[in-house]
Amino acid sequence: MTLWQQARRSARLNPSIIREILKLTDQPGVLSMAGGLPSAETFPVQAIREACDRVLTDAPRLALQYSASEGFGPLREWVAARLGAMGLKIDVGQVLITSGSQQGLDLVGKVMVDTGAPVAVETPTYLGALQAFNPFEPIYASLAGDDDGPLPEAIAALPHDAPGTRFAYLLPNFQNPSGRVMTEARRSALVAAAQVARVPLVEDNPYGDLWFEEEPPAPLAARWPEGTVYLGSFSKVLAPGFRLGYIVAPTDLCPKLLQAKQAADLHTPGFNQRVVFEVIRNGFLDQHVPTIRARYREQRDAMAAALTRHMPVGTEWQVPKGGMFFWLRLPEGCDAMGLLPVAVAAGVAYVPGAAFYAHAPDARTLRLSYVTLSPAEIADGVALLGGVLREHLDATAEVTP
Amino acid sequence: MTLWQQARRSARLNPSIIREILKLTDQPGVLSMAGGLPSAETFPVQAIREACDRVLTDAPRLALQYSASEGFGPLREWVAARLGAMGLKIDVGQVLITSGSQQGLDLVGKVMVDTGAPVAVETPTYLGALQAFNPFEPIYASLAGDDDGPLPEAIAALPHDAPGTRFAYLLPNFQNPSGRVMTEARRSALVAAAQVARVPLVEDNPYGDLWFEEEPPAPLAARWPEGTVYLGSFSKVLAPGFRLGYIVAPTDLCPKLLQAKQAADLHTPGFNQRVVFEVIRNGFLDQHVPTIRARYREQRDAMAAALTRHMPVGTEWQVPKGGMFFWLRLPEGCDAMGLLPVAVAAGVAYVPGAAFYAHAPDARTLRLSYVTLSPAEIADGVALLGGVLREHLDATAEVTP
Repeated sequence: MTLWQQARRSARLNPSIIREILKLTDQPGVLSMAGGLPSAETFPVQAIREACDRVLTDAPRLALQYSASEGFGPLREWVAARLGAMGLKIDVGQVLITSGSQQGLDLVGKVMVDTGAPVAVETPTYLGALQAFNPFEPIYASLAGDDDGPLPEAIAALPHDAPGTRFAYLLPNFQNPSGRVMTEARRSALVAAAQVARVPLVEDNPYGDLWFEEEPPAPLAARWPEGTVYLGSFSKVLAPGFRLGYIVAPTDLCPKLLQAKQAADLHTPGFNQRVVFEVIRNGFLDQHVPTIRARYREQRDAMAAALTRHMPVGTEWQVPKGGMFFWLRLPEGCDAMGLLPVAVAAGVAYVPGAAFYAHAPDARTLRLSYVTLSPAEIADGVALLGGVLREHLDATAEVTP
Repeated sequence: MTLWQQARRSARLNPSIIREILKLTDQPGVLSMAGGLPSAETFPVQAIREACDRVLTDAPRLALQYSASEGFGPLREWVAARLGAMGLKIDVGQVLITSGSQQGLDLVGKVMVDTGAPVAVETPTYLGALQAFNPFEPIYASLAGDDDGPLPEAIAALPHDAPGTRFAYLLPNFQNPSGRVMTEARRSALVAAAQVARVPLVEDNPYGDLWFEEEPPAPLAARWPEGTVYLGSFSKVLAPGFRLGYIVAPTDLCPKLLQAKQAADLHTPGFNQRVVFEVIRNGFLDQHVPTIRARYREQRDAMAAALTRHMPVGTEWQVPKGGMFFWLRLPEGCDAMGLLPVAVAAGVAYVPGAAFYAHAPDARTLRLSYVTLSPAEIADGVALLGGVLREHLDATAEVTP
């Protein structure tokens, strides 16, 4: 008998495929469009430095002491006000500060997911959410969708008798990995279907502020507050290194999520909460986020142009209206995972799409990030990728005429 | 049918009794010995300010970006070296930086505990560990003990056939809440018993640096590295507000703990890790920790003197040799939970001991922290507590002669 017996759920914990791929692709000389890292050029270092100084001058003992599991009061109020401006009217008591929105996913899984309970996800969906939910051993239902988001009829078809679908996990804005944004009409139809089917929603919105042409429609939570848990993050609008996110939950759920938070790490670092609050308290993001949008839009445009120029016929993509990613479907006969080593050898990297599916991965898909490389590097990287694909297609065509 | 169906484990999530009590006791005019907060006077604010400056000058983009789930390399190396000096020789690859050692407990529970699996704990034990393990639905075995720690024969008597006891959770140094420290002889005997019974150990050591007279014996992990997971923390020697701790695990367990960490919050804030590393890298703790010890020793002495002076006959306690707490057993007829409102009305607060038991709480126990109040306040607070107890005992004696 082994000395260390592990829990059954441990079998559902696995290495992040993305992190494994990043080890492969983070080599000198490789133009990597694999990572999902926000551009570090956008981090407001000077504002953060001043905020650290202020916190350590004004309230050092409070900032460095244990603090409330709910989070720092003024930051929670800021979140409530921000969401109010997006049409989601909530009480500050519904806001729980988390250690990144990844922790929000973990807490939701812990409080809501039993072994064998159905959880609905998009096709494809955010890999990190699958990782967070997996140890709680759900059975996934993959929601069919189109360019506007999951189909309402897919929600309607979910199991909703006891034990029922615990929730549908949805990313309405510039989804990772697909980049798609749900239209106003689709949001209304999805919420209506979920209300009829009595399937609650977990809405994850890390990218909503990163729109390029127009602000996305109001969140799902604004349409069905008592049926939606909403997750937000400071990682994409400020800096991920603080690990600051938040959950907004219907009042009935708040105590259990809070207790799960206490059990998980007592509280999110008070120092970080106060520093971030100092940075943002006087409207800083209203000036700062547009600069991120402008930068990412330019990079998005560079990638759109390069894809049009270099991708072989038969490659499919939509130009994302925000966020950080293009999602490509390669021509028949291309396996994105199989081609990755060839691409890396040629000096370019991406993330194969297969990891983003709960079921039946589409091996022809891949994700390209445009926020890490400069427009010139993007042009070069996409050109290299196009070359790899064309060479592969030519070779395939020769052997199977 | 309720809209939000919760997981079965959710029933095992409960409000922290301590946090509920703190709400009751944190009133102006109450001398509170309830909280387990390190003295904020000990936080090295100036060193932290300089470290923030340095990190934001030298490596702002790296500190504010996503980073490795394992933790910041130099900090992991520092931990490995520190433990090496304590007799625990490890490879840096065995160190996982966590969001406080509370998260270490959560990850251990997630990876190791199945529903209904036995987990052994001390009597009493750290409440936060029970909270962390509870959602994974173990069955606790409470280890009988004496002033030197749990009894080796209690380990020997644990279920060790399949599925077996997943681990024994032990706090050898100045335990929260009892203050006891395991002797050298007891450590050896416990490890020998655990090896024979094949019960692995989870060793939690938040207080080990806070010794007053002599450094405690080497950790359990140094005696049985392949059978022990070791948890450490920066909360008591630097500041809890950074939420920085670490797990050191046998090599075989590291990958699953790391994957659980990724799923839980991706990584501990890189900014915090770098700031703390900047503070401690050049031997800062060798100067700093003795100042904490001197302060806490003085407070410990004040409380010891006040208890001798003011506690009614029949009250039992040991003078702790380190850490932050006295553990009292009141005379027969005293219920610590029932007396708390009376004590608070009289202007003094403590934590009733019942919350620290997995089974069969001893209602006569209570925990007093000596690190928050000044020696003069401690004298006043203990005098008030003594008055409350004597008044209660006198009243009881009158009605039951």
